[in-house]
Amino acid sequence: MVSNVEIICVGNELLIGKTLNTNAHWLAKKVTTLGLAVKRITVVGDDVEEIAQAVREAIQRKPAFIITTGGLGPTFDDKTLEGVAEALGRRLERNEEALKMVEEKYKQYAAEGRIDRFEMTPHRVKMATLPEGSRPLRNPVGTAPGVITECEGVVLVMLPGVPQEMMAIFEESVEPLLRKAAGNLTFYEASVEVWGIPESTLAPLIDKAMRDNPYVYIKSHPKAAEGTPHIELHISTTSEKPGDARRRISKAVMQMSEMIQREGGRIRPRRV
Amino acid sequence: MVSNVEIICVGNELLIGKTLNTNAHWLAKKVTTLGLAVKRITVVGDDVEEIAQAVREAIQRKPAFIITTGGLGPTFDDKTLEGVAEALGRRLERNEEALKMVEEKYKQYAAEGRIDRFEMTPHRVKMATLPEGSRPLRNPVGTAPGVITECEGVVLVMLPGVPQEMMAIFEESVEPLLRKAAGNLTFYEASVEVWGIPESTLAPLIDKAMRDNPYVYIKSHPKAAEGTPHIELHISTTSEKPGDARRRISKAVMQMSEMIQREGGRIRPRRV
Repeated sequence: MVSNVEIICVGNELLIGKTLNTNAHWLAKKVTTLGLAVKRITVVGDDVEEIAQAVREAIQRKPAFIITTGGLGPTFDDKTLEGVAEALGRRLERNEEALKMVEEKYKQYAAEGRIDRFEMTPHRVKMATLPEGSRPLRNPVGTAPGVITECEGVVLVMLPGVPQEMMAIFEESVEPLLRKAAGNLTFYEASVEVWGIPESTLAPLIDKAMRDNPYVYIKSHPKAAEGTPHIELHISTTSEKPGDARRRISKAVMQMSEMIQREGGRIRPRRV
Repeated sequence: MVSNVEIICVGNELLIGKTLNTNAHWLAKKVTTLGLAVKRITVVGDDVEEIAQAVREAIQRKPAFIITTGGLGPTFDDKTLEGVAEALGRRLERNEEALKMVEEKYKQYAAEGRIDRFEMTPHRVKMATLPEGSRPLRNPVGTAPGVITECEGVVLVMLPGVPQEMMAIFEESVEPLLRKAAGNLTFYEASVEVWGIPESTLAPLIDKAMRDNPYVYIKSHPKAAEGTPHIELHISTTSEKPGDARRRISKAVMQMSEMIQREGGRIRPRRV
């Protein structure tokens, strides 16, 4: 049974089209490669009620994990922890472990002369103010710690929006948890480029290959507008046994290739 | 009053991290620039129930528009129209206007020798099978038409996932509707780069400028990890009067610049 994950990205910059959501893309690839399945990605603005609503809805769908990005920093519009606290019906409280982490960072910045002097301003303490019952996750490259908590059997992980910080905390503290939840399941994929037949001609061939290969998912991605027949065929499966997975994928690729060539199409394997 | 928009992107390729969601980014920028506000972006997989659920939830939040991308093509996993029909409690029916559009495309492809002969296979007819009470939107660069319908005062627009097709249909048929809904409202923005002070030092200055400039939104975007003090400050407003908007933005930029320099930071305007 594949464990489900939901991703919630917080930030007005994503809703006004200022920032391309590379965080969701990176996380989705990571989660999938680890053998879990992302079921939904939600983007909301810097608004406590919007964040709380998205978190509440996600919890109701009972994924194994909810991962949020953004909104952990020191400014007024960093509202993710307030939104999560609201969704979980918990108070925000100063977390001593988190406070120590943040203090150490600013001591270091002062020692390096990056700030005038060490001082814990309210905006700095804010980054150590977590929903009750949470634990901070060390931020190896920035200031605001990540945060982890649990609610109704769902593990919630809150990560910063700065990509380097998000990736560093994920790899250090979140990846091991997901790997454990995935067990031996792994995601396998292959890709084939198809020329010379339109997607609507390919469609019934995919139907047949999907019926004949029940554990394999085949999806066509037109590389340009339909009618300009250049299509990428993506073939994937999730399995506990690498040998089985590879056999399933090659069988489907072989069958698709034969059918495509019979229809007058040309194919070429593609690096995934 | 700003009209709200929700974007729903359909496609497993987005959930497995294969494809970066440039469609949502492009649409969000377009919608914002036209003077409307994107309130939420949701990404779901190629699953009728997941799509229907996301559409139902979005309708309940009563945006002026819901724009979906992906899932309009000829293959088995193009399920957006089925999901929308399910959400609206409507049947899918062959739409004569859409059928004419699709037929014309395949006649043209046959005339150009891109397909052997003109033929309307079930997978091609599928692209003209729309929820009752819908209207097709001409696809200037591909085959599957866009689709528009209305439910409980919410306008639903379904666009293909191939970016060129999505953009072409949007610009030809959707942009005029949004422009009308926006009235005279327009979005204005400016950006300033800040060096030499960390975000936590900037935070109280932003608080003050936001209090003093109530119609202006100021957001800091760390360009690297906190502690490496390089931050982009993004200042935006929505207004009916270009003169007012520009004055509001310059006033906020000026105030922020003064406060930042007083704290020992350096600034430089940035092209948006």
